[in-house]
Amino acid sequence: MLRQSARIASAGIVRQAAFSSSRTASRAVFTRFIHASRTLSMATPKPGPKLTAETYSDIQRSAQFKTLNSDDLEYFQSILAKNEIIHSRDPSDLEGYNEDWMRKYRGQSQLVLRPKSVEHLALIMNYCNEQKLAVVPQGGNTDLVGASVPVFDEIVLSLANLNKIRSFDPVSGILKCDAGVILETADTYLRENGHIFPLDLGAKGSCHVGGVCATNAGGLRLLRYGSLHGSVLGLEVVMPNGEIVSSMDALRKDNTGYDLKQLFIGAEGTLGVITGVSILTQPLPKAQNVAFLAVKDYQAVQDVFVKAKGELAEILSAFEFMDKRSIQLTKRHIEKDTAFPLEEEYPFYVLIETSGSSKTHDDEKLETFLESAMESELVIDGTIAQDKTELQNLWKWREMIPESSQCQGGVYKYDVSLPLKDLYSLVTAVNERLAAKDLVGAESEKPVIAAVGYGHVGDGNLHLNVATRKYSKEIEEVLEPFVYEFVSQKKGSISAEHGLGFQKKKYIGYTRSDAEINMMKDLKKHYDPNGIMNPYKFI
Amino acid sequence: MLRQSARIASAGIVRQAAFSSSRTASRAVFTRFIHASRTLSMATPKPGPKLTAETYSDIQRSAQFKTLNSDDLEYFQSILAKNEIIHSRDPSDLEGYNEDWMRKYRGQSQLVLRPKSVEHLALIMNYCNEQKLAVVPQGGNTDLVGASVPVFDEIVLSLANLNKIRSFDPVSGILKCDAGVILETADTYLRENGHIFPLDLGAKGSCHVGGVCATNAGGLRLLRYGSLHGSVLGLEVVMPNGEIVSSMDALRKDNTGYDLKQLFIGAEGTLGVITGVSILTQPLPKAQNVAFLAVKDYQAVQDVFVKAKGELAEILSAFEFMDKRSIQLTKRHIEKDTAFPLEEEYPFYVLIETSGSSKTHDDEKLETFLESAMESELVIDGTIAQDKTELQNLWKWREMIPESSQCQGGVYKYDVSLPLKDLYSLVTAVNERLAAKDLVGAESEKPVIAAVGYGHVGDGNLHLNVATRKYSKEIEEVLEPFVYEFVSQKKGSISAEHGLGFQKKKYIGYTRSDAEINMMKDLKKHYDPNGIMNPYKFI
Repeated sequence: MLRQSARIASAGIVRQAAFSSSRTASRAVFTRFIHASRTLSMATPKPGPKLTAETYSDIQRSAQFKTLNSDDLEYFQSILAKNEIIHSRDPSDLEGYNEDWMRKYRGQSQLVLRPKSVEHLALIMNYCNEQKLAVVPQGGNTDLVGASVPVFDEIVLSLANLNKIRSFDPVSGILKCDAGVILETADTYLRENGHIFPLDLGAKGSCHVGGVCATNAGGLRLLRYGSLHGSVLGLEVVMPNGEIVSSMDALRKDNTGYDLKQLFIGAEGTLGVITGVSILTQPLPKAQNVAFLAVKDYQAVQDVFVKAKGELAEILSAFEFMDKRSIQLTKRHIEKDTAFPLEEEYPFYVLIETSGSSKTHDDEKLETFLESAMESELVIDGTIAQDKTELQNLWKWREMIPESSQCQGGVYKYDVSLPLKDLYSLVTAVNERLAAKDLVGAESEKPVIAAVGYGHVGDGNLHLNVATRKYSKEIEEVLEPFVYEFVSQKKGSISAEHGLGFQKKKYIGYTRSDAEINMMKDLKKHYDPNGIMNPYKFI
Repeated sequence: MLRQSARIASAGIVRQAAFSSSRTASRAVFTRFIHASRTLSMATPKPGPKLTAETYSDIQRSAQFKTLNSDDLEYFQSILAKNEIIHSRDPSDLEGYNEDWMRKYRGQSQLVLRPKSVEHLALIMNYCNEQKLAVVPQGGNTDLVGASVPVFDEIVLSLANLNKIRSFDPVSGILKCDAGVILETADTYLRENGHIFPLDLGAKGSCHVGGVCATNAGGLRLLRYGSLHGSVLGLEVVMPNGEIVSSMDALRKDNTGYDLKQLFIGAEGTLGVITGVSILTQPLPKAQNVAFLAVKDYQAVQDVFVKAKGELAEILSAFEFMDKRSIQLTKRHIEKDTAFPLEEEYPFYVLIETSGSSKTHDDEKLETFLESAMESELVIDGTIAQDKTELQNLWKWREMIPESSQCQGGVYKYDVSLPLKDLYSLVTAVNERLAAKDLVGAESEKPVIAAVGYGHVGDGNLHLNVATRKYSKEIEEVLEPFVYEFVSQKKGSISAEHGLGFQKKKYIGYTRSDAEINMMKDLKKHYDPNGIMNPYKFI
């Protein structure tokens, strides 16, 4: 250990083992994986997820919604082109729209509408509202709480064909685009213009710009660039009655009336459909560093964070942590030629990213920081990326955890906020609880492989992934409401960034007061009196 | 000029002329000025502002509001202590609550309530709502659009006695405090704990933390720390019916339901009364630099900004500009012993502030930036502060402009957002218009002294101040709706950071669409069905 530590402390920077593929490649794999697994579920006996309506048989289809009929179809055909409509009674034809990424939820929609214009989308909404046809707005369908797939026969309203960049101003950094632009597409376009999207996340290759706004996604760089409530400048929204409300012309500062767009950021498509986004982007950093460090316990994770906030300050752009089990799980799943950057295993790992305007200054800050962290034995091992490929590969050890947790059969995902000091205690408690019920282990008859913890320390945001060999009511009942009660006792939030969706609808009371919940229900009723927008979810 | 330029280019840093007082002193003077001028208006024949009801005789008191009677007073006396109630029919007793900072608006309230607890404030609101007594929530009363003073006989509900810091967590940086804490008090407390408030503005010594949230204030460092929609984590709000809705426990990330607090940020007290604020503060920068530069035209202001964004990037914390007339006006008003930092006058000035974690790195970045800006003759003169006193004094030349514009008799203030390229064109257009009508000049018979422009280039936010010898309908009619029409044509916003208040209520249509305005009116009606919250204003 000491020998390795000395590598950083003396040489300042250490060469890593060769890495084979890039971060972008990792995302492509991620996207491919989703599609491949879906194809697999059709071609092999491996069953698809059970119908949500079967798994949760206490939820009933609401009788207030009309069932789709041939007149409705005719109407949609009168405004949309053939290739904008997918209609079928065969579940396999609509699988990609009915099933979620975790393969935990499956809806029964028989109709997907993919309008190419906002005006057409508005006509669809107006019709559905009048006819009381329930609708699920869907972006890239990378949601993790069952928010973006139907529960019963709701119509899927896909934003995928609204996918144009509208404008970009390099002086102000304001990007305007359709909601259906893929996040990575927007980011690539911005990078060509000296800017970056002020948010990054693993599902970048699939998720939509509109979707990240609708779910108020946080991601990997919230620490640096702040929340979407601050960076989104304007939205174009189609209301349930088909009215188009737009604040797309807004400049950086605009204090003329209530900030209506904020209502739709994080509303998960329950108040209206986001069709356009205006967002303040950030200048492309000229220098970037990534360090992958090992520490002896969770207390050291916190201490390294406080030290990094103080010393790396304005150049700190990400501070992520992973526990030993997260990395063990990832080692089993990651491409064979991707060597783990450290020689040994440790209880906790920390990934630090810096982004700045001077490579020399940033290197100096990071090296000074690491030298003193090693000297004081706060950090016990570590490596710094030497080039872009290494940087991307260090990130891979963080970004591959979700997929590695999911790929064996399924994953129960909990995304919570907790006071920093209590952040990891939930993972310990859940592992103890699973062990006590004899549900977890390496043996194939144990339903749970491991409960792993990782996440955004800088934001007080923990991801607890319970990797399973299959989904089962037994596991779910051990985990819920236990996890929510635990978080509530610590005054945390039961959803930090993933939202409520279907999974957490009934648990909102663990985080919000009755006064708040009543106010939310009242808002929902006010804007969507027929309740057609993404029903059975959220509030 | 070249000689001066060479000062920066060669020596890197130039010593300034001696400055006598600190920035904090400047704020104290600012606060004192307000009080002094008010005392003055009582002691001398100089008349106070005309009653708003007289100046704007087209606005009628709404008959739906009850007039205060002895039963009401008795009720308030039953819940509040004597020193929490100010009641009088003599206007001079309530002058400070009825008159705005610009001395442009004057209300006729006969009752000020200053509760010391949120529960008492809730009882007051509940009573006023039931009795249909109109209410104006008031913080530090430094508002610039007539939002914080009554128009007729509304009760003033002052937050001044709710002034406690509730808690601060140095690890997460989360500050929780009462709404009535003075911004400077909060900032001083935070500095003692290694942090700063993520917003700064000239009225810091008087304005309240709750007030800056209620008006969504922007201020001097929005460029670096973003908008309050991003940094406010939770609010405690008393609704018109007296219900207390709180999200004060929220951590940095919380996606559980609609983000209700956003509704109240910038609502100017028209939906509820903010009584508590939870906000993410920023680490205290270890190094700070301020440069005061001269450039030859507005195009150069833009070019310096783009260059600074690219080269100073993550350490750039403020980028302000001022025109020649702003500085000329300030020279007449500023303390005699405060020497102007440059030897000559120039068409435009730029103030650049950097904040970072390494003095050496920041100095190097700033010097490299300035050397190349001087070499290319983008910057034609300038100076860098050598110590904290000089830094504060350079800031004074920016911060004293509002007071210098107001002190001769009055000021028409316009705070607008415009695309950067068009930002200054409004000032030119207004000066031409005033000259054409023969309203502006150094002679004492001319009603207007000058129309000056300055503001936050980084945010596309211009402050246009029309300094007058007295308020008059004639001037107002030359300026309005001209200014709003101009801004609307350029797709700007008629209020960047000051809000709508009384002044801009009827002009909101220049920035917002009918669909948006209808939605706002609907929200207002929904949450404040009796319309008692800050009436005659906003929407």
